[in-house]
Amino acid sequence: MGFSNARAAVLRTFGAELEIESFEVVDPGPGAVVVEVKGGGVCGTDVHLRDGHLAMPRPVVLGHEGVGVVAALGKGVTGDALGAPLEVGDKVTWASSIACGRCFYCRQEREPTLCEDRSVYGINRRADEPPYLSGSWADFQYLDPGSTIVALPKGVSLEAAIALGCAGPTAVHGVLGFARPQVGATVVIQGSGPVGLAAAMYVRLAGAARIVMIGGPAARLERARGLGVVDVVIDVFDVTDLLGRVAAVVDETPGRRGADVVVEATGVPSAVAEGLEMCRLNAIFLVLGQYTDAGATPINPHLITRKQLKVFGSWGLSGADVVDFVRTLPQLTKRFDLASLVSSYALEDVNRALEDVRAGSVTKAVLSPNG
Amino acid sequence: MGFSNARAAVLRTFGAELEIESFEVVDPGPGAVVVEVKGGGVCGTDVHLRDGHLAMPRPVVLGHEGVGVVAALGKGVTGDALGAPLEVGDKVTWASSIACGRCFYCRQEREPTLCEDRSVYGINRRADEPPYLSGSWADFQYLDPGSTIVALPKGVSLEAAIALGCAGPTAVHGVLGFARPQVGATVVIQGSGPVGLAAAMYVRLAGAARIVMIGGPAARLERARGLGVVDVVIDVFDVTDLLGRVAAVVDETPGRRGADVVVEATGVPSAVAEGLEMCRLNAIFLVLGQYTDAGATPINPHLITRKQLKVFGSWGLSGADVVDFVRTLPQLTKRFDLASLVSSYALEDVNRALEDVRAGSVTKAVLSPNG
Amino acid sequence: MGFSNARAAVLRTFGAELEIESFEVVDPGPGAVVVEVKGGGVCGTDVHLRDGHLAMPRPVVLGHEGVGVVAALGKGVTGDALGAPLEVGDKVTWASSIACGRCFYCRQEREPTLCEDRSVYGINRRADEPPYLSGSWADFQYLDPGSTIVALPKGVSLEAAIALGCAGPTAVHGVLGFARPQVGATVVIQGSGPVGLAAAMYVRLAGAARIVMIGGPAARLERARGLGVVDVVIDVFDVTDLLGRVAAVVDETPGRRGADVVVEATGVPSAVAEGLEMCRLNAIFLVLGQYTDAGATPINPHLITRKQLKVFGSWGLSGADVVDFVRTLPQLTKRFDLASLVSSYALEDVNRALEDVRAGSVTKAVLSPNG
Amino acid sequence: MGFSNARAAVLRTFGAELEIESFEVVDPGPGAVVVEVKGGGVCGTDVHLRDGHLAMPRPVVLGHEGVGVVAALGKGVTGDALGAPLEVGDKVTWASSIACGRCFYCRQEREPTLCEDRSVYGINRRADEPPYLSGSWADFQYLDPGSTIVALPKGVSLEAAIALGCAGPTAVHGVLGFARPQVGATVVIQGSGPVGLAAAMYVRLAGAARIVMIGGPAARLERARGLGVVDVVIDVFDVTDLLGRVAAVVDETPGRRGADVVVEATGVPSAVAEGLEMCRLNAIFLVLGQYTDAGATPINPHLITRKQLKVFGSWGLSGADVVDFVRTLPQLTKRFDLASLVSSYALEDVNRALEDVRAGSVTKAVLSPNG
Repeated sequence: MGFSNARAAVLRTFGAELEIESFEVVDPGPGAVVVEVKGGGVCGTDVHLRDGHLAMPRPVVLGHEGVGVVAALGKGVTGDALGAPLEVGDKVTWASSIACGRCFYCRQEREPTLCEDRSVYGINRRADEPPYLSGSWADFQYLDPGSTIVALPKGVSLEAAIALGCAGPTAVHGVLGFARPQVGATVVIQGSGPVGLAAAMYVRLAGAARIVMIGGPAARLERARGLGVVDVVIDVFDVTDLLGRVAAVVDETPGRRGADVVVEATGVPSAVAEGLEMCRLNAIFLVLGQYTDAGATPINPHLITRKQLKVFGSWGLSGADVVDFVRTLPQLTKRFDLASLVSSYALEDVNRALEDVRAGSVTKAVLSPNG
Repeated sequence: MGFSNARAAVLRTFGAELEIESFEVVDPGPGAVVVEVKGGGVCGTDVHLRDGHLAMPRPVVLGHEGVGVVAALGKGVTGDALGAPLEVGDKVTWASSIACGRCFYCRQEREPTLCEDRSVYGINRRADEPPYLSGSWADFQYLDPGSTIVALPKGVSLEAAIALGCAGPTAVHGVLGFARPQVGATVVIQGSGPVGLAAAMYVRLAGAARIVMIGGPAARLERARGLGVVDVVIDVFDVTDLLGRVAAVVDETPGRRGADVVVEATGVPSAVAEGLEMCRLNAIFLVLGQYTDAGATPINPHLITRKQLKVFGSWGLSGADVVDFVRTLPQLTKRFDLASLVSSYALEDVNRALEDVRAGSVTKAVLSPNG
Repeated sequence: MGFSNARAAVLRTFGAELEIESFEVVDPGPGAVVVEVKGGGVCGTDVHLRDGHLAMPRPVVLGHEGVGVVAALGKGVTGDALGAPLEVGDKVTWASSIACGRCFYCRQEREPTLCEDRSVYGINRRADEPPYLSGSWADFQYLDPGSTIVALPKGVSLEAAIALGCAGPTAVHGVLGFARPQVGATVVIQGSGPVGLAAAMYVRLAGAARIVMIGGPAARLERARGLGVVDVVIDVFDVTDLLGRVAAVVDETPGRRGADVVVEATGVPSAVAEGLEMCRLNAIFLVLGQYTDAGATPINPHLITRKQLKVFGSWGLSGADVVDFVRTLPQLTKRFDLASLVSSYALEDVNRALEDVRAGSVTKAVLSPNG
Repeated sequence: MGFSNARAAVLRTFGAELEIESFEVVDPGPGAVVVEVKGGGVCGTDVHLRDGHLAMPRPVVLGHEGVGVVAALGKGVTGDALGAPLEVGDKVTWASSIACGRCFYCRQEREPTLCEDRSVYGINRRADEPPYLSGSWADFQYLDPGSTIVALPKGVSLEAAIALGCAGPTAVHGVLGFARPQVGATVVIQGSGPVGLAAAMYVRLAGAARIVMIGGPAARLERARGLGVVDVVIDVFDVTDLLGRVAAVVDETPGRRGADVVVEATGVPSAVAEGLEMCRLNAIFLVLGQYTDAGATPINPHLITRKQLKVFGSWGLSGADVVDFVRTLPQLTKRFDLASLVSSYALEDVNRALEDVRAGSVTKAVLSPNG
């Protein structure tokens, strides 16, 4: 294979800056694929990883969100995850994780996001062992056999495909898998970050009549409204007390009964308690934002009974969710200007990108190793 | 109609003792039925009502659980809720409430337990207006048009039909309507009161492989085990710390993964937080016991996400649940000695029955107005 | 009440022309409502009724689809089915049937479309007994207590509300109640009549990526495509053999696997056999068009097993479906020009309207008694 | 590894008798397991295979149903499919197929029974290539990496585990996966062969109140009733006309409304048409018996609409179904004498066993290679 070495952004020490290092690009073995990375998304989780908030090996090439073009195909790889032919030069994206396929949750529960033994690119793959390049913040990434790789539909740009990062498939998993709003529903989205934005988009595609987003700061909310993703926004910096927020939301629901569906996408534990108050009787409440363990918060369980709620947790995303995300990209891009969400950075500016994500000053930071 | 007046236990003053008063037995109008009450169950809720913890009109003939025989049929009543012929002398039970059929929750959501305008026997029906006798703690009860009345199946005694009181249909609503354990499931029941007991029975009928009950005191647990309702009991008076209880329960689950289904039937808010810890990933958690608003309790919402739980609230019981309860009574009585749960009291001993229920010294107190 | 008599189109003899007769407008009793009819839809079923193909009493004022304005409110009527205030002059529509609320299917199964004792306006209500005016082909219609009446949302015209007739709520019942296509789905609609058209609209609202309609004649298909309801049309008059049609449809599905969801809306028994061939493995097949019993047709049940299909039948429509239809009218009218589907007729031209419906020369015939 | 060669029953020529041949027992590679076969079930499908009715390679060691003890573990195999430790000498059973894990149906639909590229022991594995012994009609069987192997629960005999053959997991897949009868249901089972028998057992475990089996001959029906699997039997040799059979079944249902659930397990196409007639409105109909394509049969699709049925097809069985079958074996064996169903044959008598299965003279033929 004619590739020279590749640059990659490597985390060696928690809390320290990432460094750009050089690695050999290994020829793909049977069933594997090497991609030239065109965009490596920076996710809030990456900030946590860098800061050492999550257990992980080191050194690691970070980057669990990626788009690129196929650079080399291993023996036996002829198609993508949907069975379409796959060739060098095709634009693709891929799932960040490979489930084991054998554990209780993979086999019995058929729920690979709960796999007990997942391999995750950019998180639990060592950079000091072949194939080295197992994260997307690099010129090239090596995708193991069993990876979920899917070609972008015609007319979908690489930029659009990376614009939601892992929030896109995360929303697919939660909104389409569990919340499943009915046509005509009034839906409340708590949180205006990438997951809230992506969730609102899928709620819209699913036919909701009215979407109320509660979050902040104002610029984020306005962007969401400007994109046509939501109908009404409520700024938590304006309405600072819980009762006021609940009242403001309920005022926007038919008959002031409360929302048909509430999607929590904040990451703040107390938002769950607040969201339960926004539900009408018999509503669906999707907990989509509690990815880290921030401990207990006061919640009134009587609400769950009295309102006869259906509360669903949604964990992670599987290869299937990535494929469904890609399949629906033409619908998303037709209605929403996804590419406008992206702020691009050179690979060398990785640490600045991380800082911007931490500060919330960009909607979606994307590293562009190949220009 | 040849009936003389009827005695009834009436609540006139919150906190005071009930008094036995006499009322006219009104002839049933079109669509109505008069029953001679053979058993009026005493429920924990009745203690709350007597003590004034819930808003209700007064005076009221208490008693929302009842069995009896048909004394008189109004014009047009020819069958029971299942379409079987109904005649004077038939043994019957009936639903305590009549949903309005027109509100958003009745019509759009088809969920009459959430009806916004329910009439409830023994709770929100005045005793100083005709037909006066709208509770089961009386010699006769007047059942309005639209009541759900169902004849007992052959071979089912009145005593067996009243032995679970409203806990029976409550368990039907929650366990068969929402939790729906799979054949072979390992199920944890939190709480050993009537609702926990009834829930365990339906979990057993549904084919659970293993039922662990956590509650107390010991005598209740042993009764549950003795009846064959549960396989393993854990006494909260023995294992007094949360971590210990969680560990004890998880030890009883396959692969120590946690329970497939957890049913909360305690009424203690903190039990919800504890029950979430007992769930395996992808489990179902049914909140069946939070009928009164005891305020917020610390709950960790990360568990809902991380475990990808399905948390269902279940509120009340409808006429359909009462019918399903009666339909399954032959199966319940075949496996469990329901009648052994009953402690009978004369109508005059109503205040003693209430005290015994408050003290938890009986499993099921039943007033027997007609001997 | 100040109304003079009202004209109505009456069916007295099967097969004969309807006659315009005059009836007293009865003042609405408690819970009832009188509406001034602005549009009475003509449905294919009306042709069958006129021809005597269905058992029904006579004389009957036909018309089971209607829109109008409230003319008089009976005592106790203060709101519509969604709880919004209802006043004289409000634009409304209403469900054609009132379920009994007490039979096995109403109470136990909570499925009023299967009610064993339904009252249906314009079909099983006699015109020679008060309140006489129980069909929509009249100047006024009397709506009994228990009717589902719903005010039109702001901005929705009477014409738009009647444009789909009962096909609208029928599609709600089937598509939103059973088929529930996922966002991104490829859906095949068999049939281009009102039910097929309405089904396609709801499939679109629910987020389908691609809708293929197979039917005819060409003008109908082109109208459906022109309205933006469907993406691809296949004309059964062009492709006249089953294998060719199946191949043509499958060619339009991703990976040529077949459709994710197929909705049969033809009324032709053999279409069911054909539709099963168009399903991919694990697909949903909705039988929405077999409203009349045309006897058996050759069907290969091995397909149901081999493809592991979910086949749902959908019968009729309930008050809830009418309400959901009205709630989603703003969404429908925003995307599709519903009013363009309507051809208006004076009440006196009722027989011509029936002939046009029989001939299929109009998409939606609507009688306009009040101009 | 100390094994000498092993005997196996090999199909070389369609229609001809199988021959006993000798093969090398290959040492298990990484992730593989060699089992000493204790019982190899003979299934109706094997007769079809022998007769050449299904496409398959040859030569093949037949036998897709098996139980045995672990003889040797490949590197890396430490546990069974439930994560329990696995050691030489453990009693086990295994799934007959290995799904690819990558095709559309494995990954997107999470339905491995629809896998487009399955490897199936005893059916599509050549005997003239290593590891040769890929069927259960042999002294030893070689189980590839990725096989679903599960240890028998304590107290469950090898004989009980093989007594239902693949009909056991087939019933798990259909009854627990799709039909899911409610507690208290009245269920009709069409067919009294192994699949009907196994389906009835799971319907029983799931809490059905009443099970009616329609099939024949009389001896089979009586065995089913004798084992306590069904409550009522109707012999198709006694009631020979469709209308009579439908009436006989409906007479056994509550209110003569028809069955809540009907499970078709006959393999006869016309049974599907007949079963639809036995359904009540809103019933579930499970097509579990149409495994071979016998072409079209007259079916009335109006029934699906008019009764608003849910018709589910169920195809095959996955590793998860085998595991669930094994998990529920203690419940099955507690209620039903499974071992009594088995007729044992020496491996050399394989052709006689096939003839007995073809003749229907045994309930379950099992080859016992190791005595």
